[in-house]
Amino acid sequence: MVETERLISVIGAGAPTDEQEEHARQVGVLLAARGWGLVCGGLGGVMNAAARGCAESGGLTVGILPGHSRREANPWCKVVIPTGLGQARNLLVVMAGHGAIAIGGGAGTLSEIGHALKMGRPVVGLGSWHIEGMHQAHEPEDAVATMLRMVE
Amino acid sequence: MVETERLISVIGAGAPTDEQEEHARQVGVLLAARGWGLVCGGLGGVMNAAARGCAESGGLTVGILPGHSRREANPWCKVVIPTGLGQARNLLVVMAGHGAIAIGGGAGTLSEIGHALKMGRPVVGLGSWHIEGMHQAHEPEDAVATMLRMVE
Amino acid sequence: MVETERLISVIGAGAPTDEQEEHARQVGVLLAARGWGLVCGGLGGVMNAAARGCAESGGLTVGILPGHSRREANPWCKVVIPTGLGQARNLLVVMAGHGAIAIGGGAGTLSEIGHALKMGRPVVGLGSWHIEGMHQAHEPEDAVATMLRMVE
Amino acid sequence: MVETERLISVIGAGAPTDEQEEHARQVGVLLAARGWGLVCGGLGGVMNAAARGCAESGGLTVGILPGHSRREANPWCKVVIPTGLGQARNLLVVMAGHGAIAIGGGAGTLSEIGHALKMGRPVVGLGSWHIEGMHQAHEPEDAVATMLRMVE
Repeated sequence: MVETERLISVIGAGAPTDEQEEHARQVGVLLAARGWGLVCGGLGGVMNAAARGCAESGGLTVGILPGHSRREANPWCKVVIPTGLGQARNLLVVMAGHGAIAIGGGAGTLSEIGHALKMGRPVVGLGSWHIEGMHQAHEPEDAVATMLRMVE
Repeated sequence: MVETERLISVIGAGAPTDEQEEHARQVGVLLAARGWGLVCGGLGGVMNAAARGCAESGGLTVGILPGHSRREANPWCKVVIPTGLGQARNLLVVMAGHGAIAIGGGAGTLSEIGHALKMGRPVVGLGSWHIEGMHQAHEPEDAVATMLRMVE
Repeated sequence: MVETERLISVIGAGAPTDEQEEHARQVGVLLAARGWGLVCGGLGGVMNAAARGCAESGGLTVGILPGHSRREANPWCKVVIPTGLGQARNLLVVMAGHGAIAIGGGAGTLSEIGHALKMGRPVVGLGSWHIEGMHQAHEPEDAVATMLRMVE
Repeated sequence: MVETERLISVIGAGAPTDEQEEHARQVGVLLAARGWGLVCGGLGGVMNAAARGCAESGGLTVGILPGHSRREANPWCKVVIPTGLGQARNLLVVMAGHGAIAIGGGAGTLSEIGHALKMGRPVVGLGSWHIEGMHQAHEPEDAVATMLRMVE
């Protein structure tokens, strides 16, 4: 038997502010430091920054892509899952994690928050949507600590 | 050539209040009266009531099911599309319409609103979520009129 | 209650021979004559010809598209379901029918035959793949008669 | 940057013969020995045996599940991707690999072979379907050598 990698979904803006990008990187670093891997949508912005932070700190990174070419993935995904499913891959990103941390983000992130809440996955927002049922954090440390308290 | 049926997505609560159910039925009636068909998730509550209103007024009704058995459909869907895709069918429901009217609803409906906004589909809420980018209506007449003004 | 439209999936070559195209058209005509609707992948070739035959004979036609724009549909689909799911829509095409008739076709059609057989849907081939579990026909009349004998 | 894990899809019987199971295990071992990871459908039979062989030899194993619970996965998957997509996950299994090795298998495996060929992925059969466009092998060593010759 192998120990299955435990993953947190990091979702959010494809075109983030500098602060969101730095928050995403730190969330990735902190997840890796706590022994968690990361799953994201595999593209740029928050996805790239969070994957980079996690990978650089030795965490496993998974990118689930909307298109069918693995070449679309950002360079920080160890495991790349192309899907060709377009937006429907959003559901897979949140289903693959034990919970989701949202950093910024627009309507696509909102669809992911909806799917995560529907599945009963805990969701923590960091400068993202304020939706009933989500938890809110102000710093990457809060976000990761709040999430891991719920899933560990 | 045949004229393609024009459809509006009606999304919302599977377990609605009496008012939501009546609103859904009226939305269905009004869509049919204006020459539009309806697409929904094919199950109960708002989906059933809206499909009933539309079908009883002569409109075409399409139900896109999460499961793989067409027997799960409510009895008011003329065209039943089982998918076996689970929650991922939410995306298909909003993609099949020219716009979406949301009546009540929880996290599943939220995922549909997110997907619809992401695709640039107009979304009108009727006692549902208040999300930036949505239009809000207070009565079925407003909801349908607001929607059709945007898509016709 | 409305009577749910009964559908047969017609699958096959996007770039058919003249004979395959004519076979597809006739299959569509015969399905409509027997009171059945048709569901297909919504694009060209066999899909277009079969939908045309069915629609011109008064049958209901449904096209389930791989892309997210309903403008990709051939002009003979009364109900158009864009999915954005790429090849994954192949599964939906065969799931939506009570059985599938395959006319010519390559690897995409093969994936549909596999999905149909896995779901226990009857599959009739007309100049298409020869796969264990499929029925074979030589003319459109045989194909439709063989199919409807199994699903009616 | 991290080096993306290179994966081969191993597909086939959920209820294999003893020989198929042993072939699957050996294919997993050989892939790991050559520096490749493995992606499979995450369940039992060929999927379990191949993942076991690969994981026990130090290779990365990915299981893409049809259901939405990661508890359905066999115990040899390091990365578990639940999808809730039912049969549509078959497409994802073959899309995630650089090529697919089929060991035994029925209609579900046939759908995967169709999808793989449609995407231009090389497919090697080992006691599985004989489909035009597939390569055939008689032993695990042949299967892996034939595959890696095409994808390396």
